[in-house]
Amino acid sequence: MFGQMMSQPLLISSLIDHAARYHAGTEVVSVETTGGITRSTWGGIAANARRLASALEALGLQRSDRCATIAWNNRRHLEIYFGVSGAGLVCHTINPRLFPEQLVYIITHAEDRVLFFDRTFLPLVKSLRDKLPCVEHFVLLGPPEQEAATEFPGLVFYDDLVASGDDGYVWPVFDENLASSLCYTSGTTGNPKGVLYSHRSTMLHAFGANLPDTIGLRARDTVLPVVPMFHVNAWGSPYAAAMVGARVVLPGPDLDGDSLIALVDGEHVTVALGVPTIWQGLIAAARRHGSHMESLARTIIGGSACPPVMIETFRAEFGVEVIHAWGMTEMSPLGSANHLLAKHLAMPPEMQAERRLSQGRPPFGVEFRITGDAGEVLPDDGTTQGDLEVRGLWVLDSYFRQDAGSALRDGWFATGDVATLDGDGFMTIRDRSKDIIKSGGEWISSVELENIAVAHPGLADAAVVGVRHPKWDERPLLVAVAAEGAGPTSEEVIAFFDGKIASWQKPDAVVFVEALPRNATGKVLKNRLREEYADILAGPA
Amino acid sequence: MFGQMMSQPLLISSLIDHAARYHAGTEVVSVETTGGITRSTWGGIAANARRLASALEALGLQRSDRCATIAWNNRRHLEIYFGVSGAGLVCHTINPRLFPEQLVYIITHAEDRVLFFDRTFLPLVKSLRDKLPCVEHFVLLGPPEQEAATEFPGLVFYDDLVASGDDGYVWPVFDENLASSLCYTSGTTGNPKGVLYSHRSTMLHAFGANLPDTIGLRARDTVLPVVPMFHVNAWGSPYAAAMVGARVVLPGPDLDGDSLIALVDGEHVTVALGVPTIWQGLIAAARRHGSHMESLARTIIGGSACPPVMIETFRAEFGVEVIHAWGMTEMSPLGSANHLLAKHLAMPPEMQAERRLSQGRPPFGVEFRITGDAGEVLPDDGTTQGDLEVRGLWVLDSYFRQDAGSALRDGWFATGDVATLDGDGFMTIRDRSKDIIKSGGEWISSVELENIAVAHPGLADAAVVGVRHPKWDERPLLVAVAAEGAGPTSEEVIAFFDGKIASWQKPDAVVFVEALPRNATGKVLKNRLREEYADILAGPA
Repeated sequence: MFGQMMSQPLLISSLIDHAARYHAGTEVVSVETTGGITRSTWGGIAANARRLASALEALGLQRSDRCATIAWNNRRHLEIYFGVSGAGLVCHTINPRLFPEQLVYIITHAEDRVLFFDRTFLPLVKSLRDKLPCVEHFVLLGPPEQEAATEFPGLVFYDDLVASGDDGYVWPVFDENLASSLCYTSGTTGNPKGVLYSHRSTMLHAFGANLPDTIGLRARDTVLPVVPMFHVNAWGSPYAAAMVGARVVLPGPDLDGDSLIALVDGEHVTVALGVPTIWQGLIAAARRHGSHMESLARTIIGGSACPPVMIETFRAEFGVEVIHAWGMTEMSPLGSANHLLAKHLAMPPEMQAERRLSQGRPPFGVEFRITGDAGEVLPDDGTTQGDLEVRGLWVLDSYFRQDAGSALRDGWFATGDVATLDGDGFMTIRDRSKDIIKSGGEWISSVELENIAVAHPGLADAAVVGVRHPKWDERPLLVAVAAEGAGPTSEEVIAFFDGKIASWQKPDAVVFVEALPRNATGKVLKNRLREEYADILAGPA
Repeated sequence: MFGQMMSQPLLISSLIDHAARYHAGTEVVSVETTGGITRSTWGGIAANARRLASALEALGLQRSDRCATIAWNNRRHLEIYFGVSGAGLVCHTINPRLFPEQLVYIITHAEDRVLFFDRTFLPLVKSLRDKLPCVEHFVLLGPPEQEAATEFPGLVFYDDLVASGDDGYVWPVFDENLASSLCYTSGTTGNPKGVLYSHRSTMLHAFGANLPDTIGLRARDTVLPVVPMFHVNAWGSPYAAAMVGARVVLPGPDLDGDSLIALVDGEHVTVALGVPTIWQGLIAAARRHGSHMESLARTIIGGSACPPVMIETFRAEFGVEVIHAWGMTEMSPLGSANHLLAKHLAMPPEMQAERRLSQGRPPFGVEFRITGDAGEVLPDDGTTQGDLEVRGLWVLDSYFRQDAGSALRDGWFATGDVATLDGDGFMTIRDRSKDIIKSGGEWISSVELENIAVAHPGLADAAVVGVRHPKWDERPLLVAVAAEGAGPTSEEVIAFFDGKIASWQKPDAVVFVEALPRNATGKVLKNRLREEYADILAGPA
């Protein structure tokens, strides 16, 4: 027997309709790629999204056709999010930091018919154009300009395209399981793989993101997504903001501390989202300018583990609550967020601080488990480490254009992380599965050693990898970059670990290099380090 | 093209699984019907819910069979919520305050096969038993007891039933659109009508309820649902609490101020939900006991309009934020909640207070519109009044066992309320459509006049109805009950309206009665008043 409730699909168009209907006058502030701040509203964003959708239909785009973007966080990009997905097309956001050959691979693999891009990327797109036969429409995000038109024959200007559209366009209604958007992951090996989100998964993710124990936006918030809109949809924040009618500040291309602190203070930002590196710049700039970040209530920090000192600085110096979060492109991306429980709030500050280092608890909609080498489920005791597996309402089933379920094992997605899980659901990432060091049957977290190493004043950068050892199978090797003007010895660096970690976990040796090898998105290529230094501890051959 | 995300139905069983997995040790505190407090946990509730589900299967219950409850807010009732719905059966909560013939009508109409009831209702159920041939299993919510067993042959005891079940029961997976629960509305005329919720509507409602601008529960909250679990599922709070793993306090049968303040203070309640009448008792008791309600952060007040003075008392005297909410059985029930916007927070206190009287804004998932007599959509200008119509993810389509869509007009459900709606989505109920008074082409809200009348110290109760008038078509008549020991004159009462309302809106006359006629759930039978006093202002015949 079915319930007798209204049947309405969960569609992204209903988010922008809601924002436009009940929060029409709420601002969307945008730093433009060409400089300066413009101010729109949810009503304005919605009207342009409808115009864009109708214009794309007029260009002949069909249901589920892919439209790519290479763009910063700005107003036009936001309109594309809602206009493209709302029209039943797929919004494919691309990371401009990828290597050109990866860009060509991704656009070709996705068969993008339209490519929207910011002025910044005109030279890049121009250089790739001949390799992208699938792209029929190149659209520059801005008003018409002669120079670009001359330089790039056939170029369409976004503002012209939108002006040609119909504000009275009515969003189509379709199956909520249709694809809405597409992001490619950039691993350290192999070709990027696409994650194809559905309207349903995106909408349920937005509900999950807005739970108070996740990000929990309100209409009275002003949200600053510093995390790029090309990086897992800015963690879903544009959808979450539209769902509650929050005011939005889009920071454009300049993400340095000075630019950001000006926005935080000038626009009275209450919630900001981004990776730890960004906040280092923000904190430094705030100190320089004497800012207290008065309006800022909380920052959502993810992308990589948040250094403990950053959490404490935000709290003690600026009165900002840090919410340590964790996720993956394959999880839309929110997997967990760290909000302390009632019992933790009664603990002394240092114990609370220790609790805050965990990646937090999964919201309803996500499930975690950890498994051992034979796939057996390991206990949630807070100390047993295992491979972290996830499943849920916004977790991928298979990569784009791969077979259904092919990314899963027994219905779960293996994250590639090693983690602990406790009885309260708190999950702590220990390392990437492939990076953890197995020494004499015990596990050593490379991440933990790296966190200690980078706190050494004489080091600018550090990576730890496991290398072969005749007795212990593997031992940790620290590959380090000395800070400018500093030159610590190996012995000094190793001694720095004393008292911070069990002595058997200390690196066996230190290698100094000029720079660490990294991929296009900045991830250290540990495979390369492992190969290069494979035999450094192997002893006499 | 479909998205490539995991496909998981939205089922109520996943809520209790989540709570049991990640919040197993979080308490569920329950005041027992027979007195005393018991303490369970989400882990314990989940285990008993699974046992109950398996025991009901063993009794031969089939998918979508209805299981009724007549019970207070307590631990066993909570287990039934999850056990019955989780098993794919329909949890039919019944209001014990209905007249016996209405109870028989409802149980027969629903074809309930099981009836769970609290000890309180043993005499009632015993008296109805012969009229309920559909009910195969009568289950008393408690441990076995000789007296009841003797008195009621064949009686099943809940604790025996649960003990016979299997804790290792695995929840079935089925279509999320299947029915999960059933509530009958008790109008002032005609037979009660059933609203048949689905798993999907219940789950999306729980997400909507947990948006920070609605109720917004957190794991660190302790929630006290004073609103009965037989009244639109305690506004969905059991589901919302399980979704986030909040601590729950179930108040049992005694909802007087003394009992409630003891729970609020003794159990450190942070969020409470209930109707205005309940809070009047709570506030009075807090003053008597010198309680500051220190733990209580907010109360969600709905069911009827919240008197302004109550909002202010909670805020100024106890530091409790009042969230004025509105809904209907047909809306699961949440339709709107009043959270001020950033711009309101900058206003002087008296303007904020005025804003708080509105029933608030719809969360994402609910849409409002107001229409005129010809069905035309009226402007959202904050002053135009019209019939409030709603639609959304958790709004009914048709009443139980009526045709699909039969409760709708043009896809919208007419609430029967007259309201205004402003550009920010703030909705203010002016009156019930059938109760508003149409005087000389202008509308007068009976609710507004009643709110003024009950503030008169000499009046204990009051209702205002429109009665025929030779010149103005209709004019307001005040039907009043004098306070004990008081005896104000009609003139004194009418003069009390001076300066509180435009003079043409003042009641034309006052009739004093011993008591107002009310239905089983306490709603004033205005139809009866309108009939009785139809000609009182008609002048000479």
